[in-house]
Amino acid sequence: MVQAIAELLPGERVVYLGDTARVPYGNKSPETVTRFARQDAAFLLDHGVKAVVVACNTATAFALPALEASLPVPVIGVLEPGVEAALGRTRNGRIGLIGTVGTIRSEAYQRAIGARHPGAQIVAKATPLLVPLVEEGWLDHPVTRQVLEEYVGPMLREDIDTLVLACTHYPLLKPALREVTGGRVELVDSATTCAAHVGRRLGALGLAAPEGTGGIDIFLTDMPARFEAVARRFLTAPIHGIEVVALPEESAGQGTSAP
Amino acid sequence: MVQAIAELLPGERVVYLGDTARVPYGNKSPETVTRFARQDAAFLLDHGVKAVVVACNTATAFALPALEASLPVPVIGVLEPGVEAALGRTRNGRIGLIGTVGTIRSEAYQRAIGARHPGAQIVAKATPLLVPLVEEGWLDHPVTRQVLEEYVGPMLREDIDTLVLACTHYPLLKPALREVTGGRVELVDSATTCAAHVGRRLGALGLAAPEGTGGIDIFLTDMPARFEAVARRFLTAPIHGIEVVALPEESAGQGTSAP
Repeated sequence: MVQAIAELLPGERVVYLGDTARVPYGNKSPETVTRFARQDAAFLLDHGVKAVVVACNTATAFALPALEASLPVPVIGVLEPGVEAALGRTRNGRIGLIGTVGTIRSEAYQRAIGARHPGAQIVAKATPLLVPLVEEGWLDHPVTRQVLEEYVGPMLREDIDTLVLACTHYPLLKPALREVTGGRVELVDSATTCAAHVGRRLGALGLAAPEGTGGIDIFLTDMPARFEAVARRFLTAPIHGIEVVALPEESAGQGTSAP
Repeated sequence: MVQAIAELLPGERVVYLGDTARVPYGNKSPETVTRFARQDAAFLLDHGVKAVVVACNTATAFALPALEASLPVPVIGVLEPGVEAALGRTRNGRIGLIGTVGTIRSEAYQRAIGARHPGAQIVAKATPLLVPLVEEGWLDHPVTRQVLEEYVGPMLREDIDTLVLACTHYPLLKPALREVTGGRVELVDSATTCAAHVGRRLGALGLAAPEGTGGIDIFLTDMPARFEAVARRFLTAPIHGIEVVALPEESAGQGTSAP
């Protein structure tokens, strides 16, 4: 996602925060994901950003309304652009949706698609093994194709013509997904659709950067092994620095109780 | 693990903390896992525990020495009992080891086995897909057998006769592992070996509880969907309560920087 933005909007200076100490967000509750997203956004505001991109489908699905209501800058999630792209591409109105447990259970995509195209048929499936398979690097592995077949096969039998990859990890699985779907399904990738949307929103708000090279500041809450080598290989924009940081804590609540 | 302790030591009152907001620990750095483990232990001490069991292999591998050095109560990890059980069972001294990326990379098991049995041959493999497969519930799925075959097959060809399941999730994969290993390998399960070890340590320290029913207090940092139903089905000991809590934060450091 950050690479897609850097490529499409090279003049923008990107402040990237990866909450690597607490990921994945995909299996966590709406309350916890929203609390984490507020802390993440507070960190970015402390660094003077003019807009916040929520580059995670789970955080978008659970926390976007709360962030829009409380932040003093525009907030852009990954959901709207993906929904628009899916509705622009489907011909038969039968749309598949894969994402984390949180994203699917939130029904945020299902509601957004239903609001714009009440006749759409949505076939949604939580696919929690895909992020671990991507992180294991098994992008072209027989196990991955078998897992995709298990997850996506039933959708194909329900005759979807479009599949929304509602997780920022999934675009790496596009080649395997094209094999499993036999090329019969449009794959909607939230990273590239969102980057284009960010460009249009910044333009409309009069916030677009002038020409030039903005570059990227990378902040992480934990330093994963080999992160720097991987980041420098994948990112074409100049990296100003990679720093491990502690997030500002909210005044910790007392939590809730279930006796 | 908590079930194994409750079954073996029913008189003990167990204060269980699951850091569900920040799991899994398996891919995180030694520094972050140690910081989290200190916060977890501080929470348990605030609840008056007489001993701390580190019921996670990654936290044991990275943080046990730091916890032993700083806590005012005995600290029991999952590593020692697993190592002792493996060395007691192997006949040819060729021991397989599977665990998270962190556990394997820490080399804590490899060092502990080597110190006790310098001639032992250890074949270690990080197996990061196994926790997600267990959490997806695919315990008896062809994909799981294929993943195990990929991870464990090379160990069998190196003639291991014992396999240490160095992650508290893995015992649920024992039936699948027995199939994949054709029953030719001893499976060492850290949960049951550690529970017995806890009983012996408490006895030796004069800390064992009198007869009776201790029960379990469950604290979590996030409430996963369906947690309570699952906990009440799997745990035979009485549950006094299930509560979502905020952990005491350390005075947050400035983090480290890699330019």
